[in-house]
This record gives sequence, C-alpha cells and structure tokens, in this order.
Amino acid sequence: MKKYKIAITTGDKKGIGKELVVKALKNLNLRNDDVLIIGEKLDLNYDFFEIDEKDNGKFCYKSLEKACSFAKQGLIEGIVTAPVSKEELYKSGYFYNGQTEVLEKLLSINNQKAQMLFIADSLRVMLLTRHLPLKEIELSVEDVVFKTEILNNFLIQKCKIEKPLIALCAFNPHAGENGILGREEIEILNPAVKILISKGINVLNPMSADSLFAKVGKDYLEGKKVRYDAILACYHDQGLCPVKALAMDKAVNTTIGLDVIRTSPSSGTAYDIVGKNIADPQSMVEAIKLAINLCNN
Amino acid sequence: MKKYKIAITTGDKKGIGKELVVKALKNLNLRNDDVLIIGEKLDLNYDFFEIDEKDNGKFCYKSLEKACSFAKQGLIEGIVTAPVSKEELYKSGYFYNGQTEVLEKLLSINNQKAQMLFIADSLRVMLLTRHLPLKEIELSVEDVVFKTEILNNFLIQKCKIEKPLIALCAFNPHAGENGILGREEIEILNPAVKILISKGINVLNPMSADSLFAKVGKDYLEGKKVRYDAILACYHDQGLCPVKALAMDKAVNTTIGLDVIRTSPSSGTAYDIVGKNIADPQSMVEAIKLAINLCNN
Repeated sequence: MKKYKIAITTGDKKGIGKELVVKALKNLNLRNDDVLIIGEKLDLNYDFFEIDEKDNGKFCYKSLEKACSFAKQGLIEGIVTAPVSKEELYKSGYFYNGQTEVLEKLLSINNQKAQMLFIADSLRVMLLTRHLPLKEIELSVEDVVFKTEILNNFLIQKCKIEKPLIALCAFNPHAGENGILGREEIEILNPAVKILISKGINVLNPMSADSLFAKVGKDYLEGKKVRYDAILACYHDQGLCPVKALAMDKAVNTTIGLDVIRTSPSSGTAYDIVGKNIADPQSMVEAIKLAINLCNN
Repeated sequence: MKKYKIAITTGDKKGIGKELVVKALKNLNLRNDDVLIIGEKLDLNYDFFEIDEKDNGKFCYKSLEKACSFAKQGLIEGIVTAPVSKEELYKSGYFYNGQTEVLEKLLSINNQKAQMLFIADSLRVMLLTRHLPLKEIELSVEDVVFKTEILNNFLIQKCKIEKPLIALCAFNPHAGENGILGREEIEILNPAVKILISKGINVLNPMSADSLFAKVGKDYLEGKKVRYDAILACYHDQGLCPVKALAMDKAVNTTIGLDVIRTSPSSGTAYDIVGKNIADPQSMVEAIKLAINLCNN
C-alpha cells in the first residue's frame, strides 16, 4: 500500500466531523500524498479508506483501529482524529473515556502511556490526568515523574527546544498553603520535582495554578513567547479552562508518548449544529497543520 | 466619628499590601472623605486608623475586625482588603482559609454567607466553593440554589441588570458525559437548575467548563460584552485559572452576600518582591474603583 504523512479519521457519524474535515482540507493546500482519509467517504480529492459499519460507536472504534494498524505498518506517521462522543463508544461496548485512551490501547508498546498535550503557538499545556470524575483524580510521585519525562523528551525531540523549562500547577488552590489546603503538594508534587531535577529536567516547584496562568495568559495575549516551554496541569479543567479561554480554536489536542503523533481539534461532536454548515473548521485546520509539522521534525 | 465611602486595610505586614495601597491611591484621584486606611500608618493624605499589634497574624485579623466594626456602625459602606497570607493567620491561631471567611464570620447577619465573585469588565465569575483542598469539595442542591440566588440578586441590585443570564460550569470534565465521568451534574447541578428556573432565575444547564470558557474568552478578548452576565464555577481553580489567564490584574475579587461590599486585588502577599518597589498596583486600583462604584449603586 501507498504511504502517507497522516491519516485523518472522520469521527462520530452523527457529529460535525465530516464537515470539519471537508472544510479544513479545502482550506489547506496539502499534497495529495500527505493525507489518507479513514471513515466515511467524502467528496474530496484525497485517498480514503472507507469503514463499512452501521453502528456509530463501532464505526468510530474501527476507524481508529484501522488508523493504528496503518501506523504500525509504517504506512502513516501521524493521525488526526475528528471528534467522537464517548457516550456512543460506551453504547457500543467500548468503555474508553476518550479517543486518546483508545489510541493508547491500540498503539502502546512496552507499556507506553498516551499523554494529552494542548498546543497553541508557544503555549503548551499537558494534563497529568485526563477523563476522570473530579473526585477520582489520583496522582503519584512515579506518575508525575514518568509523565514529565515524556513531556521533556517531546519538547526536545519534536519541538527542538534544547533545555525545556517546565512549570507545574499545584493540585490544590493556593498550592495547598503548606498543607493547610491539601497535602498533595508536600507528599506528591514536591518529591516528584526533586527527582526530576536530579535527572536534569528543568521543572519548577508547583505554583498556584491561577497565578501561573495569570503569567502565562499575559505572555500569550501580549503575543510574546510564553515564559515556560510547557505547563503541567494536574487535571482536565485546571489545564483546559485557561487554554481554551485564551486560545479557543487554536488549541490543538496532541497525543504524545506513543510512537505515533496524534492531533485532534478542540471541537466536540457538536450534535446541535450538525447539518447547518456552520461548524468552524479553524481548530481542525490547526490540528492538521500541527500534525504535519510534528511529523516532519 | 466621620463617615467614609470605603475602608482599605493594609494587609499582611510582611507582604506588598502597603506598597499596593500607596501606589494605587496616588494613581487614583479620590476625595479625601471617600477613604479611611486601616492597619499600618502610610505616608498618604488620607485618614487612617492604626492597628497597634506586633504579631502579624493578629494584626491582619484585627485590621479586618476594625473595618467590620466600622461597617456595622454605618461609618463605611465598603471594604477593600490588601492581601494576607493564610499561613500567618493560622500561625496566630486564626483558622480561616482566607479573608473572605473572616469577613463572613464578622459581618454575617441571619446566617448570611459570603460569596467570592471575580469581576473584570463584563466578565463575572463566582465560585460555588472556595478555599478547600480539591479532594474535599462538596456541593449540594440547596447550596447551589442559595448561592445562585445571591448572585442573581447582586446582578440585579448592584449591576443593574434587569434579567441576568447565568451560566453554570459542570463539576466534572465534559459535564460528566451523562454519568460516565461523574454524577454531580445529574444528582446536584441539574436538580438545582430546575429549582432555580422555577423561581424565575435565568440559569443555564451545566456546561463543560472548558467549552464554556472558550466562548467567554472569545467574547472577552474580542472586547465584546460577555454573553453571560455571570458564570458560576464549582471550585477555585476551575473559575480562577481562566479568569486570571484572561484578565490578569484586572480581575477584582468581590465579596457579595453580606450587607457590606468588599473588594480585594487579585495579587497575593508576594513576599518574594517585598521592598523592591516593583509590585504592580493595577489590581488594587481596579479593586478600589470597583468598590466605590458598587457602593454608589
């Protein structure tokens, strides 16, 4: 089979995925050999691999499975995924909390773990935990060390930053105020930082997340390079609320830590606007551009 | 005793409070009768009430106590507080997680509860819970209803919005995905919204917080009036990370729900820059201006 730079899955059949892919590819001027579309057949001048499956959840899963299989065969270097509803996956018996988890299952070699990194220009925010109920978030020293190393390697290898500077959000408000507002800083984050520093990784002590994002927001909104090469957030909303407030559709969800780079637009399935032709493809445009750039590095 | 519009406490003796107050008042052009300074004596042309106390935590507490006592006597209408470290309060035996909690204790009549609302132009974000370890956050239907009513009343009475539109952040990522990622939406937030709507309050169903702040950020950064008159965040970092990323020093911490309006700059004690004369007074300027405006309404 032919080789491509990236595969793009068309995502949830009932969502805006197809619309995003069509609009984004018309917007971009890519070489035909760069892109393989997987999922639904689209009226576009690119090769496609159709997934013949009526059940929506199964269709979503099989599209990802096919992309991963091509990646493992070395036929594609990166994957861009249109949005999928986790409910649809659940309904069809795929108990994954997101596509990232599916890709981790299908692509992981030697216990590799997928990490979720959001990128908008020099603003990079990685989540230490992902799709979990707020009450079920758990961090461990080993986990923080492991994930920070993955981030550091990505910044060096794919972003070509020689000695990355990484900022870490505290778990609790006001960084726990020395234990008054929680002990995760004392028991987990501070020890993790010590270990990371001893390994030569340039990571800062946990900072009150709101103060940290005040600084980051200032840099980003003034059009400067963000002062930290990446920010580690302890959980989903802590990282994503400020990223999306600042960068909106420019923020690309990037999966790192697996051998294959994957990007995904920040859009959801947006069932409420399907068929109205009003979905904004900006985020998908950014996702495709970033995937191709990272694959070239 | 003379009457003033607002009292300003100088805050933590070891912090940047004094510097903020001096710089802000020199920056603003206020009537002498508008302002009473409480705490440390400052070289300014305003009346002051000195708190004679060497212990830092006690000093902070007593300054607030004095401001509250003046408020109860009707001698001031609003309070602006310079930053205080919760650790210093703790060290001196005042087990409050923030000044807001102290003011609530001292000012509450008939079980009134202080609420923390952040205001930057038309961006208004209120926290449903405040200074708590992340793992100890608890919401209840009654609590959400009670606090939303306080917010709604404030928007009508003090912001002069006839029929406020209030958006509500979901507790869990992706608004819990119908229970897959947590049940607080189903068990607490949705029932609370139903009750609030039956009371004629215009509050929306819980939205995934990151998507909500993507919209809010877009409005704010484009210089438009934010599409919601206020946003309710379930906890500290969920609300404050995006607010500070977007508005930085413009965001004023406003305490509502008590008979006295209180504002506070977004700055912390910032021990690391004390004495360097580099503290940015912008946030204190905004806090004083907002307090005077709200007291005039």
